[in-house]
Amino acid sequence: MSAPISLSLHPDRLFPVDASTRDVARRLYESVKDLPIISPHSHVPPQWIADDVAFSDPTSLLITPDHYVTRMMHANGVRLDDLGVGRNDMTADDSRAAFRLLCEHWGDYAGTPVRYWLENELVDIFGVTVRPSPETADQIYDAIQAWVGDGANTARKLMERFDIAVLATTDDPCDNLEHHAALRDDATFTRRVVPTFRPDKYLEPARADWNQLVDDISRASGEAVDDLPGFLNALANRREYFKAHGAFSSDHSHFDLDTTRLDEAEANRIYLAARRGAASADEATALRRHLVWHQVRMATEDGLVLTLHPAVVRNHHTPTFEKYGADVGADIPVSVEVSRALRPALESFGTHPNLNLVIFTLDETVFSREIAPLAGFYPSVFAGVPWWFLDAPDAIKRFRRAVTETAGFTRTSGFIDDTRAFCSIPARHDMSRRLDACHLADLVVEHRLAEDEAAQIITSLVVDQPRKVFKL
Amino acid sequence: MSAPISLSLHPDRLFPVDASTRDVARRLYESVKDLPIISPHSHVPPQWIADDVAFSDPTSLLITPDHYVTRMMHANGVRLDDLGVGRNDMTADDSRAAFRLLCEHWGDYAGTPVRYWLENELVDIFGVTVRPSPETADQIYDAIQAWVGDGANTARKLMERFDIAVLATTDDPCDNLEHHAALRDDATFTRRVVPTFRPDKYLEPARADWNQLVDDISRASGEAVDDLPGFLNALANRREYFKAHGAFSSDHSHFDLDTTRLDEAEANRIYLAARRGAASADEATALRRHLVWHQVRMATEDGLVLTLHPAVVRNHHTPTFEKYGADVGADIPVSVEVSRALRPALESFGTHPNLNLVIFTLDETVFSREIAPLAGFYPSVFAGVPWWFLDAPDAIKRFRRAVTETAGFTRTSGFIDDTRAFCSIPARHDMSRRLDACHLADLVVEHRLAEDEAAQIITSLVVDQPRKVFKL
Amino acid sequence: MSAPISLSLHPDRLFPVDASTRDVARRLYESVKDLPIISPHSHVPPQWIADDVAFSDPTSLLITPDHYVTRMMHANGVRLDDLGVGRNDMTADDSRAAFRLLCEHWGDYAGTPVRYWLENELVDIFGVTVRPSPETADQIYDAIQAWVGDGANTARKLMERFDIAVLATTDDPCDNLEHHAALRDDATFTRRVVPTFRPDKYLEPARADWNQLVDDISRASGEAVDDLPGFLNALANRREYFKAHGAFSSDHSHFDLDTTRLDEAEANRIYLAARRGAASADEATALRRHLVWHQVRMATEDGLVLTLHPAVVRNHHTPTFEKYGADVGADIPVSVEVSRALRPALESFGTHPNLNLVIFTLDETVFSREIAPLAGFYPSVFAGVPWWFLDAPDAIKRFRRAVTETAGFTRTSGFIDDTRAFCSIPARHDMSRRLDACHLADLVVEHRLAEDEAAQIITSLVVDQPRKVFKL
Repeated sequence: MSAPISLSLHPDRLFPVDASTRDVARRLYESVKDLPIISPHSHVPPQWIADDVAFSDPTSLLITPDHYVTRMMHANGVRLDDLGVGRNDMTADDSRAAFRLLCEHWGDYAGTPVRYWLENELVDIFGVTVRPSPETADQIYDAIQAWVGDGANTARKLMERFDIAVLATTDDPCDNLEHHAALRDDATFTRRVVPTFRPDKYLEPARADWNQLVDDISRASGEAVDDLPGFLNALANRREYFKAHGAFSSDHSHFDLDTTRLDEAEANRIYLAARRGAASADEATALRRHLVWHQVRMATEDGLVLTLHPAVVRNHHTPTFEKYGADVGADIPVSVEVSRALRPALESFGTHPNLNLVIFTLDETVFSREIAPLAGFYPSVFAGVPWWFLDAPDAIKRFRRAVTETAGFTRTSGFIDDTRAFCSIPARHDMSRRLDACHLADLVVEHRLAEDEAAQIITSLVVDQPRKVFKL
Repeated sequence: MSAPISLSLHPDRLFPVDASTRDVARRLYESVKDLPIISPHSHVPPQWIADDVAFSDPTSLLITPDHYVTRMMHANGVRLDDLGVGRNDMTADDSRAAFRLLCEHWGDYAGTPVRYWLENELVDIFGVTVRPSPETADQIYDAIQAWVGDGANTARKLMERFDIAVLATTDDPCDNLEHHAALRDDATFTRRVVPTFRPDKYLEPARADWNQLVDDISRASGEAVDDLPGFLNALANRREYFKAHGAFSSDHSHFDLDTTRLDEAEANRIYLAARRGAASADEATALRRHLVWHQVRMATEDGLVLTLHPAVVRNHHTPTFEKYGADVGADIPVSVEVSRALRPALESFGTHPNLNLVIFTLDETVFSREIAPLAGFYPSVFAGVPWWFLDAPDAIKRFRRAVTETAGFTRTSGFIDDTRAFCSIPARHDMSRRLDACHLADLVVEHRLAEDEAAQIITSLVVDQPRKVFKL
Repeated sequence: MSAPISLSLHPDRLFPVDASTRDVARRLYESVKDLPIISPHSHVPPQWIADDVAFSDPTSLLITPDHYVTRMMHANGVRLDDLGVGRNDMTADDSRAAFRLLCEHWGDYAGTPVRYWLENELVDIFGVTVRPSPETADQIYDAIQAWVGDGANTARKLMERFDIAVLATTDDPCDNLEHHAALRDDATFTRRVVPTFRPDKYLEPARADWNQLVDDISRASGEAVDDLPGFLNALANRREYFKAHGAFSSDHSHFDLDTTRLDEAEANRIYLAARRGAASADEATALRRHLVWHQVRMATEDGLVLTLHPAVVRNHHTPTFEKYGADVGADIPVSVEVSRALRPALESFGTHPNLNLVIFTLDETVFSREIAPLAGFYPSVFAGVPWWFLDAPDAIKRFRRAVTETAGFTRTSGFIDDTRAFCSIPARHDMSRRLDACHLADLVVEHRLAEDEAAQIITSLVVDQPRKVFKL
C-alpha cells in the first residue's frame, strides 16, 4: 500500500492562471475574504441553532441530508439506503460504511463543486490532510468523528466561527416559528436567524392535500377561509406573523412563473370549486397563478422580498420518491419562460417602490435573454445569482458574463447558498467571492473597468447588494 | 474633495491579456481600425444629415433618446421624466440635472457596453479626461456643451469625421423620403445615406390602426387595396419607391419568424374580413405570416435584402408606455424558433439567387442550434451579428464561438450598429473590430488558423461581408 | 504566381496558449494520443471493410459523401451536382473539377472543424504539404489520387493504420448483416466491426411506407405482425439477430424524445388502424412514442445500449431532397425537451441495472439544464458527447464546462465520431483527446483537480467510459 496522497487547499484556487489577472483577482478577493457571511436564503433547520445541537457523526453531517452528495453516488451505482437516505436506523458501522462509499467514489466527483466544497470542509474545518480513498476512509472518518464529539463544534459555535451574520431558514406558513422566537429572545445570541415564508403548497389547489392545508392555515391565522378573500387574508396574516419573527422574504417555487390575474369573482368561483374538490386541472393552475399574483401584491404592502425558484420536475423518479421521499436528488430542471409569465405582476407592480423580486433559474438561457433585460429596466427586479446545479465555478462565470453586460452589478442579488449542508456554507460563500474576483479581474485586465471600481464592486456584491435587495 | 480620477482609453482595451495573443490581436485590429464605417442598419433620423443639424445640449444628444442609457438609470431608481423622456420642455437646468444623474449613476454602468461606448465618446469625441462623478458632472457637461456649440460638430461634419461611408436609416413605408432625396440630389454630399423599408405595422392586421395604415399605403402607392392582391401591389410599389431612393434592404420585427403561406383565396378572405374588422386573432396572425412570406417573395423580385429582428415583447410595462411612449427601454426579449418558422419561405425561395436574408436574434440559443446550421446550407441565409442587448463584448465573443464552427465567417452579416445614438457609432464599430480581432487571434494562437488568413478575414468582415450581404 | 503557402500541423494545435496550462495539456494528451480508437457509433459502410475496398478518387473519398463538406460549399454558391452529389456519372475530369471547387472555397471553411479535420487528413494521411488553393488544387488532387491507387491504402489496411479497435456501423433492422457476418467469421480480421440496430422508420406509423416496412420486418423476423404484440416480437427478434452479429447498441433519432406509454389495448387499436391507413397524425405520433418506450423496455431485456439523437428537421429543403435525396446537409436542428419526454421510460426503467441510455443533442441548452442533472441521478443515463454540428472545438469545450460540474466525467459517453467520412476518424478522435486534455488542464491549473487525477480521467474518457457505457 502506497503512502496516502496529501490533500491541501491552494491559496490561488479558482483564480485565473495568467499572472497579471491572478494578481488583480488576489487583491480583490483579499479585500472581501474575511467579511461576514450574509445568507438570505438557506435550508438549515432553525432548531439546530436554537438548541445549539452537537452533530452525531460524519455521515449524518456530510452525506445523508445532502442530495448533491448522494445523487452522484446513486448515479454511479450506490443504493441510497447505504447512504442512510430514508432511514433512521443507521448504526455506527453503517455510518462508517457509508462514509467509505463516499471515499471510494471520490473520483466520481472530480470537476464538481461538491468535490470543491468537500475538500474545503475537510481541510479547513476538519483538519484532514489526506485525499479520500478506500485506504484513507477510516482515518478521515475518525478525524471527523472526533471533531463532531468536541464540544467546541456545536451549531452556534460554528455560526460564530463561520462568521454568519444573517441566516434565513425556509419555513412552512403554519409553523409557529418557536425556534426563531427563542433565538430572537435570547440575549446571548447576537447573530440574526430569521424565517422565510414558503407558501408553495398552499397555493396549489391541484394538490390532493390542498383542502387540508387551507384548513391548517385558517387555524394558524384565525381567519375564516370560506371564500377567496378570507383565504387571502389568512395568507396575509401569516406573512405578518413571519415578519414579526424577523422574516424579510417569501420564497416561491412553482412549475412556471405565470402571474396571470383572474377576475376576482371568477377566481372566487374556482376557489370554492376547488374547496369542493370540483376544480379542473386547468382551473387549479389558473387559480395558482392568480394566487401568486396576490403574493406579489401583498409584497408591495408588507415589503417582504420575493425569491422565485421555478421550473423543476420534483421527484422525477416516482419509485425513488415512494421509497425515500422528497429532496433526495431526483429533482430535474426544465426550461422556463420569464418575460411573458411575470408580465401581469410587473404591469401591476413592477415600478412599485416597495417591491423587490429576485429571479433564480436553472435554465441558463434566460440569463441574457430575459432576466437581465428585465432587471435592467424594472427597479423591482433583480437577477438571482446561480442556484443549485448552477452554483458551480464555470456556471457562475457564465452567469456574470451573461448578465453584467445588460444589467451591470447593481441589479444582481448577492450570493445565495440555498443549502441544507451547514458546514458547506463558508466554502460556498468563499467560492462565490473568488469567482466574482475572477470576473472583475478579467474586466480590469481587459481595460473595461478600473481596479478601484472593481474593488468597490466586490465589496458591494458581498455586503451591499444582499442588504439592499433583501432590505436588511 | 479629492482630485478627480482621470479617464483615458487604453490602446489595448478588450484585447486578450496573454502577450502572444494580444500581439496578434493588435496586428489584426491595426489592419482594419481606420477603414470606413459601413452601417447597413441604424436608427439615425435622416433629417439630421439632410439638414446638417447642430445638436443642442449634452442630455438630448447622449441621454434622452438612448434607451440603453435611460433604462439602466430607471432600473436604479431614476424617473424617466428627469432624463427628459417623453418631454419637450427641458430647460438648460433640467438638462444639466439629467446629466448629473448620469454621472451619479456612473457606477451602475460598470461592466456594460453602454459604459464602454460612453467612455469612448467622452474621450475621443468630446475630449473629456476625468471620470464622471457628482464632482465632475458640471465640468463634463460644460465641455460637451461647448463642443455641441462649435460649428465644427454638425451632423454632416461628424459623418466625415467618423468616416461613415454608408448609413441606412429605418423608415415608414409611407414616408416620402424627402430627406433621402435631398441627400441623393446634393452633389456636395458624397456619403451614402439610404432608407430601409420597415413595413411591420402594415403587416399586422390585429392592430387597432391597421385599416387606417392600409388606407395610408393605398394613398402613398396609388394602388387600390380592395383585395389582397391590391394590397400586395401597394407594398411592392412602396418597396420600389424605396429602392429608387437607394434602399437596399427591408427590416422586419414581428413576434415570431413564422412564414407559413396560406392558400391565396383563403388569405384574401381573411384580408377582407380584417378590413371589415371581422378577423379573429388567429386569422390576423395567420395573415401576418402569409404577408411575411410575400415579403420574401417580393425580395426575390426586387432584390431588397431582408433583415429579421424577431421575438421581443414591445412596451412590456403598459403604464410606462402610456406615459412615455415606445422605445424607452421597456422592450423585453423572448425565445425564438427559426428552423420551422422560416421553413415555408426557405422551401419556396431558399436557393433563389436574388434572395439574401439576415437573421438577428436576442435569443443566443439559436446561434449554434438553428441560425448557423441554416446559414451553413442555404445560400440566401446569413447569421446577423449580435444585436441590441447582445451587442456587447462577451456576447459578441459567444456569437463568434457559436457560429463560426458551423458557418465559418462568410455566412455572417458584418457589423450592424442598429443605433439611434449617433455619436456612439464609431465606438460601436471599433468595438466590433477589436472583438473580431480577439476571436481571430485566439484561432491563430491555437493553431486553428494561419495569421495571413486571419488578416484577410478581418478585412472581409469589415468591408466585404457587408457589401456582399447587403449588395452594396 | 507566388510560391504556394505551406501546410503543416502544429504539435500544440488546439492547446491553450498559456505556457503552464499548455504543459499540462501536452502531458495529458501525450498519455492517450496513441491509444486505439473505439468508435461505438459511426456511419461507415460495413461492406468497405468486408470487401477491403480500395477507394477510387479524392472527390468520392473526401467530398461527395460528406455533407459537412458539401453543405458549406452549397451555402457559398456551389451546385451540389458539381460536387457529385446525387450522381453516378462523375468522370475523372468532373472529380478533379469538384476537388478544385473545394480548394477554391478553402477560405470558406476557416474556423470550422471540417477545415481542421481536412488539414489533418491532408498532412497526416496523404502527405500534402501545401495549402489548398486554386493554384495547388491539381497538385493536391494528384497526390491523393496516387495515394488512393496505392494498394497499401485499402479499407482494412486503414483500419490497422488508424488503429480502430471497435467500429460500429448503423444498419437497417431488416439488413441480413452479411458483411458483419463475413467479418466476424474471418479469422484474419482481428478488429471488431459490429452493426447498430436503427429502427427509426419502423417506429413511425405516419410514414407513407410504414405498412411496407412492417411487412418487411415480419418477413425478416418470421413473426406475424397481425397485432401490436406480434410487431413488438418482430422488433425484438431483429434486435436479437443484431446482437448475434455483435451489436451492442440501438440508435434512435425521432423528432422528439417523448416516451409516453399508451394503454396496451389502446396502442393495439391504433396499430391496427395505422395498418389500415386509418390512424390520425396524433395517433401515429402517440404510437411512435409508445414504441420507443418499448425499445427501452426491450433494452432492459436484451441489454442493447440506446443512443438517442433527437430533434432534427430532416430534409429541410424539399426541392433539394427531391433532387438529391437525404443526407446532403439540409438537416436542421430544433430545440429539444428531455426531462419530461424521457420521464415515462425512466419512471419504468431508470434504475434498471441492464439499461444504458446515452443522450446526444444539437441543442446545447439541455446540457446543463436537463441532461447533466439526469445523468447525475439515474444510473442508466449518460450524457453523450457533442454530436454533429457540435463536434467542434469550442462546442466541445462548452459541453465539458456545462456537464462536468453536475455530472462529473463518469456519466459521459466517451467520444463518438458519428461519421461516414472514414479518413476523418483519426483526426476526430485526436481532436477530442486534445480538447479533453485542454479542459482537464484548465481544472489542474485552477487547482480544481490534481494532475494525477486528470491523467487517470483522460485515459478513462478514451478507454474506460466507452467500454463501460457501451458494454464492450
